[in-house]
Amino acid sequence: MVDRLVVVGAGAVGSAVAWAAARERLAGEVVLVDPDPGSGASRVAGGMLAPISEAWPGEREVLELGAASLAAWPSFAARVASDAGRDVGLRTEGTLQVAVDAADVADLDRVAAHLAEWGRPVERLTGRETRRREPSLGPSVRAGLAVPDDLAVDNRELLGALGAAGSVVGVRSLARRVVRVLDDGARVTGVEFADGGVLEAERVVVAAGAWSGSLHPALEGRVRPVKGEILRVRARRTSLPPPSRTVRASVSGRPVYAVPRDGGRLVVGATQYEAGFDPDVLVGGVRDLVGDVERVLPGIADYALEESAASFRPGTDDNLPMLGPLGPSGLLAATGHGRNGMLLVAVTVSTLAAVLRGDALPAEARAAAADRSAVAPG
Amino acid sequence: MVDRLVVVGAGAVGSAVAWAAARERLAGEVVLVDPDPGSGASRVAGGMLAPISEAWPGEREVLELGAASLAAWPSFAARVASDAGRDVGLRTEGTLQVAVDAADVADLDRVAAHLAEWGRPVERLTGRETRRREPSLGPSVRAGLAVPDDLAVDNRELLGALGAAGSVVGVRSLARRVVRVLDDGARVTGVEFADGGVLEAERVVVAAGAWSGSLHPALEGRVRPVKGEILRVRARRTSLPPPSRTVRASVSGRPVYAVPRDGGRLVVGATQYEAGFDPDVLVGGVRDLVGDVERVLPGIADYALEESAASFRPGTDDNLPMLGPLGPSGLLAATGHGRNGMLLVAVTVSTLAAVLRGDALPAEARAAAADRSAVAPG
Repeated sequence: MVDRLVVVGAGAVGSAVAWAAARERLAGEVVLVDPDPGSGASRVAGGMLAPISEAWPGEREVLELGAASLAAWPSFAARVASDAGRDVGLRTEGTLQVAVDAADVADLDRVAAHLAEWGRPVERLTGRETRRREPSLGPSVRAGLAVPDDLAVDNRELLGALGAAGSVVGVRSLARRVVRVLDDGARVTGVEFADGGVLEAERVVVAAGAWSGSLHPALEGRVRPVKGEILRVRARRTSLPPPSRTVRASVSGRPVYAVPRDGGRLVVGATQYEAGFDPDVLVGGVRDLVGDVERVLPGIADYALEESAASFRPGTDDNLPMLGPLGPSGLLAATGHGRNGMLLVAVTVSTLAAVLRGDALPAEARAAAADRSAVAPG
Repeated sequence: MVDRLVVVGAGAVGSAVAWAAARERLAGEVVLVDPDPGSGASRVAGGMLAPISEAWPGEREVLELGAASLAAWPSFAARVASDAGRDVGLRTEGTLQVAVDAADVADLDRVAAHLAEWGRPVERLTGRETRRREPSLGPSVRAGLAVPDDLAVDNRELLGALGAAGSVVGVRSLARRVVRVLDDGARVTGVEFADGGVLEAERVVVAAGAWSGSLHPALEGRVRPVKGEILRVRARRTSLPPPSRTVRASVSGRPVYAVPRDGGRLVVGATQYEAGFDPDVLVGGVRDLVGDVERVLPGIADYALEESAASFRPGTDDNLPMLGPLGPSGLLAATGHGRNGMLLVAVTVSTLAAVLRGDALPAEARAAAADRSAVAPG
């Protein structure tokens, strides 16, 4: 018996869980399996670590989980960077949520009041104050909400650093496609590959994002693909400089964000469709993203369009991820992170590490217990 | 003496001239030199072979040259296809020029009258008649002009076929960058590469598109880059089918076209900027192309965006290309084709072949003589 742990899926979540498991020697061998590491939703993510400006009344558990993960992010990032010997691309400039019409202003006020009740630091700004902080904002911006505690991460830097850190601590990577987690009715026995091959394992972490539902009956129907599209743009020599903070807005009812990257780049996102695994970047999606972000940052018209891409967030019915044991013994979930995979990777790592050590789910992760539907169906 | 002909630039024009020269044994050896064959404006072209719907009063010579080339296209295409053993992607469905506002309708009427004077077959259609021919046209289309004689070509199929045909007839391809055409004051002696190497040649055809001006003093200032951007989109299973003809319109004063390709694809173009060699696809350019084409073909919002690209048309002051001898003996131009490179490749090939045989410029190409500025300066 090698005490093998297989992690299915080398996005940010799976790579981070495999790294942590190997680093803390929570299994005799850690194997990270993905036919195309870092190619899914993690590659396309905006990288906002922004639970506070995501908060809406009625999603208190989502906010609490996100806040716990945000608090854990700096030390998580420092450990990854230290092991990897490279930066993970964390940014600390915070978020500006801006309003472009009267309805948005009312929304900002509601969010500000809600967050004040929660004791979260936010600052309500006039349009002029907002533009003073980010001169690239256009004249249509009527009000703003500064959220200084939000972070952001360069998703591709993070993926690179996680891969390097995993190698350093002994994660074994396998470029194969897992089609099924195998069990004997009581315990996990391994994973089966697309070519019929099998890798035996005592424990399997399913971190396959939107594709997780097909890997074991206990996950079936629990995770659905929520398609999203993003643009990657770059300020040119002749352009207005990009904002230094994450800028978020709602335009014509559609949320839009621009998250700074190094080199004058911005990730602009994100559309949202319930359309199954439809991989196309749509003309209409690009039109909406460009039109909406131009409303807020008009100078972006002169930016270079470097990339447009689509991927699939792993959505759950209650917008909470699925963390920890479910189904047969040895089956562990680290999926269902919806739009918040980058934010929640820190709390996911500490939660899965606790479970792999044999501990109970940490208190802050209990609402996201993977087996919660068994307790409270529906 | 090998009687070597060097053709600089493996876009459609250079590849076609090299193919024709080798095929007709107009030189002892034909060498086609390009560091990245088929990567320039030819790769990004819409592929409209449409002199008639391009025609405007005052550009009679442009129309005549285009009409001569259009007439030569079917036999040119047949010869290339025969040598290559593959299709060049010629389409014969014609063009629909459509009007979306009152000013456009007046323009259509002017063009129709102008072309009628010229004896060119065109058909003036109401909005309803226009939409009956192409049901994908939106309700904003108020009138149309059918130009049945226009052709279109799949630029990438053509490039592939020209490369194959050239190989078959003995064109030697060299993946190097020419920086200068060399001469001894009276005659061409060869070309110099970026690494300082030299290839001797008795004759050199400069077919380097927008980059031609830097290759010899006789070409300096005669060709400028006119940047253009295009989109390549694809109808999906759920989409309205694409038009079967080339559709052209003017929206907010900007020309826009959609040229059909196989597989439900369309090339949508093209922006136009006098911006030097600026290689970026601009966010604002994509926004304009999408907005303008949606005005005419609203169903395109559901199409997949497969590619956005920019390149540089080789522009001249009088919108005519530069064909044939200029400067020292043995220097020949096949450049300056502006927006009409694909259309004019047929007449360019027959013109350069005549010159290489030692004949005078054919009558239809005299207005495009490369040395015309020496005759009528300014």
